[in-house]
Amino acid sequence: MRDHPSAVELLVCTRCRLGDVTGDEDVRPGAVLYRQLADAAIQGVTVTPVECLSNCSRGCTIALRGPGRWTYVYGGLQPCTDLDTIAAGADKYRQAPDGLVPWRERPEHFRKNCIARIPPLDPPVRSLGET
Amino acid sequence: MRDHPSAVELLVCTRCRLGDVTGDEDVRPGAVLYRQLADAAIQGVTVTPVECLSNCSRGCTIALRGPGRWTYVYGGLQPCTDLDTIAAGADKYRQAPDGLVPWRERPEHFRKNCIARIPPLDPPVRSLGET
Repeated sequence: MRDHPSAVELLVCTRCRLGDVTGDEDVRPGAVLYRQLADAAIQGVTVTPVECLSNCSRGCTIALRGPGRWTYVYGGLQPCTDLDTIAAGADKYRQAPDGLVPWRERPEHFRKNCIARIPPLDPPVRSLGET
Repeated sequence: MRDHPSAVELLVCTRCRLGDVTGDEDVRPGAVLYRQLADAAIQGVTVTPVECLSNCSRGCTIALRGPGRWTYVYGGLQPCTDLDTIAAGADKYRQAPDGLVPWRERPEHFRKNCIARIPPLDPPVRSLGET
């Protein structure tokens, strides 16, 4: 399988509260998730913090993207317990040059918690025909 | 081919059923919304059909994006009744070089039905600090 070591970016919403309203930036679940994913050093995936991916009602939230790839936003993620799921999903995404991972190959959580997807900015665009 | 670096693109999910399970592609609410928006000829905005933006539970769905801009996904839209809202929101977006429209200047429907947002692929990235 061809590798794409620098093409994939994993965005993590660092401000997600997951219902916690303490307001402490350092202990927000989103910030915790970001630090855990940055420490996980997923092969070929750059982890980037983002202040709000605007999926506040269904966090924690990540997005996978890269040049020439579909961008996928996933929600309903928990720090600690979902790290392996995210790593597995990110790896599948990295292996798909256009970011389109066949439905059955996605982690179950990704299949059930896809918030949105966006086609690549540059054509050509093909679709898996999701509905 | 995109011939203008600051062009704004309005993506429309053409497969949205809005609960209608007839399966007729031509009369799907998403397809109707796309045709209406394409006919509306919003100044400076290219309307692009997309087969599924994966926001099926909260359609109809659009996204606004462009090079160097934040991408915003909006849901809960109805063909016919929400055309003016979409046109107004798209115009505000077009006027913001980075796509970040101040909260109070967004149409009310956009404020209440933002599904997700994604920072531009290329830095620099600044944030409005949404939560």
